[in-house]
Amino acid sequence: MTEHCQAALKYARQHKTDFLDGLKQLVAIPSISTNPENKADMLRAAEWVATRLEALGIEKVAVMPTAGHPVVYGEWLGAPGKPTMLVYGHYDVQPPDPLELWQTAPFEPSEVGENLFGRGASDMKGQVMASLSALESVMQTGNLPINVKFLIEGEEEIGSPSLGAWIAENKDLLKSDFCLNPDAGMLGKEYPTITYGLRGLVYFELRVSGPDHDLHSGMAGGVVHNPAQALAELIAAMHNVDGRVTLPGFYDSVRALGAEERAAFARLPETEADYLAMTGVPALWGEPEYIPAERTGARPTLEINGMISGFTGKGQKTVLPAWAMAKISCRLVPDQNPEAVYEQLKRFLTEKAPQTIRWELEKLSGAPASISDLNQPAVKALESALETVWGVRPFFRREGGSIPVVGQMQTILGIESVLTGFGLPDDNLHAPNEKVHLPTWYRGIEALIHFIFNL
Amino acid sequence: MTEHCQAALKYARQHKTDFLDGLKQLVAIPSISTNPENKADMLRAAEWVATRLEALGIEKVAVMPTAGHPVVYGEWLGAPGKPTMLVYGHYDVQPPDPLELWQTAPFEPSEVGENLFGRGASDMKGQVMASLSALESVMQTGNLPINVKFLIEGEEEIGSPSLGAWIAENKDLLKSDFCLNPDAGMLGKEYPTITYGLRGLVYFELRVSGPDHDLHSGMAGGVVHNPAQALAELIAAMHNVDGRVTLPGFYDSVRALGAEERAAFARLPETEADYLAMTGVPALWGEPEYIPAERTGARPTLEINGMISGFTGKGQKTVLPAWAMAKISCRLVPDQNPEAVYEQLKRFLTEKAPQTIRWELEKLSGAPASISDLNQPAVKALESALETVWGVRPFFRREGGSIPVVGQMQTILGIESVLTGFGLPDDNLHAPNEKVHLPTWYRGIEALIHFIFNL
Repeated sequence: MTEHCQAALKYARQHKTDFLDGLKQLVAIPSISTNPENKADMLRAAEWVATRLEALGIEKVAVMPTAGHPVVYGEWLGAPGKPTMLVYGHYDVQPPDPLELWQTAPFEPSEVGENLFGRGASDMKGQVMASLSALESVMQTGNLPINVKFLIEGEEEIGSPSLGAWIAENKDLLKSDFCLNPDAGMLGKEYPTITYGLRGLVYFELRVSGPDHDLHSGMAGGVVHNPAQALAELIAAMHNVDGRVTLPGFYDSVRALGAEERAAFARLPETEADYLAMTGVPALWGEPEYIPAERTGARPTLEINGMISGFTGKGQKTVLPAWAMAKISCRLVPDQNPEAVYEQLKRFLTEKAPQTIRWELEKLSGAPASISDLNQPAVKALESALETVWGVRPFFRREGGSIPVVGQMQTILGIESVLTGFGLPDDNLHAPNEKVHLPTWYRGIEALIHFIFNL
Repeated sequence: MTEHCQAALKYARQHKTDFLDGLKQLVAIPSISTNPENKADMLRAAEWVATRLEALGIEKVAVMPTAGHPVVYGEWLGAPGKPTMLVYGHYDVQPPDPLELWQTAPFEPSEVGENLFGRGASDMKGQVMASLSALESVMQTGNLPINVKFLIEGEEEIGSPSLGAWIAENKDLLKSDFCLNPDAGMLGKEYPTITYGLRGLVYFELRVSGPDHDLHSGMAGGVVHNPAQALAELIAAMHNVDGRVTLPGFYDSVRALGAEERAAFARLPETEADYLAMTGVPALWGEPEYIPAERTGARPTLEINGMISGFTGKGQKTVLPAWAMAKISCRLVPDQNPEAVYEQLKRFLTEKAPQTIRWELEKLSGAPASISDLNQPAVKALESALETVWGVRPFFRREGGSIPVVGQMQTILGIESVLTGFGLPDDNLHAPNEKVHLPTWYRGIEALIHFIFNL
């Protein structure tokens, strides 16, 4: 280990409180990208990140406009001949609802035991701040041994609709050797993890209507196909009894899992009991011929993210509702195409929807799945860094979540992403009581310091 | 026609504006029985009715407590040896939501053309005020030729949960020869109607859960049975392809329609085109072996009144929701029993619900169907009164709606109800833009005057 590396690690250990204060400041900004009311907060979060980059000594820092929320850019290119790392992050978060289930206020970051609670504490303001804290430790104790660029976006939680175009427009600016993307989590706090596959995502809103106004269920019940019932019938038909999706052609382009990959999946530490404990369900569900890690990591799914119709308040109202709506999204695996899945869902609805109702389908976003090259030097550097800090060989896995930018980095910039992160399975991502485990977070900062010196 | 009857009719024609002003005052009170926030408004509406009864010269007027919202009682027994009519009504209304679809404020009664718009204008503040206006016309122009009692309740729109016990406690007070219940509507403005059958109602809330918190659809999608999907699967299984309800034993006690009754249904003026126009649906639905009037009047149904799960706001949230809820109600026909249907739904859920989810079912209210005796003198008196005003023989029909009190009058007080009313099929009951057609309403007042003198 070089002296500079040792000095950087020492700096990190001495500045834990400063790093945590920074994270708290960022988590306190309600940067909910899907909510138009938080537009000013989005800008405030972007500017907070920009100010922090400038304080590190990063150059050409700018909050750059896109068709949607802005991207924060910055660079430091003082190590000619050395590799250039593009650090990816997002400063936006998911909505905090249902608010009543939070034990602390989602935008008032709160330390409870070893955890910091707050929306975005783990996904991914915590990971952005781990990257910045590692770089600060290295830059405050000597010259950064590599070149670095930053792309911190504000639309990840809504499917990054503007990012592809922005990357394409700024292709030269973003030229790099690889991307560090710490938006993927760990399998457990003693299981450092490198993610090499991510599922894609395509998100829909389906609206079923029939009557032109709400009807009295006594007057019209029996002659009108209730839109809530019709929507339920369509949703029920989207899976067969084995949990397979029934959209026509849905599995046609799904890449089969090879024997080697299935063996790697079988070696993962998670058991069925872990999944039961993590979710609280009475029994697991899904395609019986795949183990849980395969079902969440390497198989496509169709989920109902939300559903509403008629009267849902306290008490009773004997209405026959005029319409019903569902939010539906599919997680995609290689080599499924989001646009093709949109066509499959439209075909399913055309074939299955009865003449007694009307339907409308809107595609809100779409991004394909991605698989990264495990033999790139940056992956090897990270593998060694994680092993140094945790004392165990990292696990390689394919994750169920979707990070559209990984595919965009490959297709537009031609670079691979190194996917890691220091969030845990019980961090309550996208749910009430999101938190980050601070001892793991500090280990993550040290691992990123080693990683920088390993490159 | 007696001189008194002629004088009463003249009085009614001269006081149209006064009657309408009274109706507007009552509609302006937001007496939403299901909403705890409107408790004070409920009392205000009851007191308004009581004050109006006192002004008519009705005696022993009282706002009497029940386990829920109070009942307004009053009597005038100055015609010994003559029949006693119990006038039924309810001063409560349905919630006005969805508010954004109203073209006028629901509790600011507004005259537009020949209609008065406002929640309750037709169901049934308009009908209560038609009864009071007819009695006022008769009592202001001479001695009432019959005895009269009033029972104006405040819980009809939530299934009259407290009324049965209250009637049983006040059996002697309520002793009467028959009940006038104007809470049933007309088939069209030129079709005066006497309703002789009503469907019963049993109302449920079904909650399906699985995970103990909202999950990330990328992390858990594929291993967790999505509660929104599971609820949709259960709802979809509650009907077969012919629109028949699949709860075990649901049709076992349904009284078959006789040939005579089916002939009467076939004579009703409504066509399939009328149902299409009234509802706005692209095509009708339901049991193919019955005509629409039979399906809504004489066949039981199961309706989804509301449904909610997960994220339903604008944009997208990739949540796998922890729970899903549906409001479900069944319209019942003779001789179905609400409690038995509750057991059938529980058995259905026990048999069909998979081990991957949990469910809870709550029964919110229940009342059986009823059929009235068409040969009672009060029905003959009303038949003749309606024919005098409209110039056509009234139509006799079984209605799809539910009025629990009709069954309670039969079983507890041993009296029959005469069911009529002056609401029209396009009055938007329980829906936005409820209205009453004023020329029809004035004709209704005159018909009730004739009715009183025919008794």
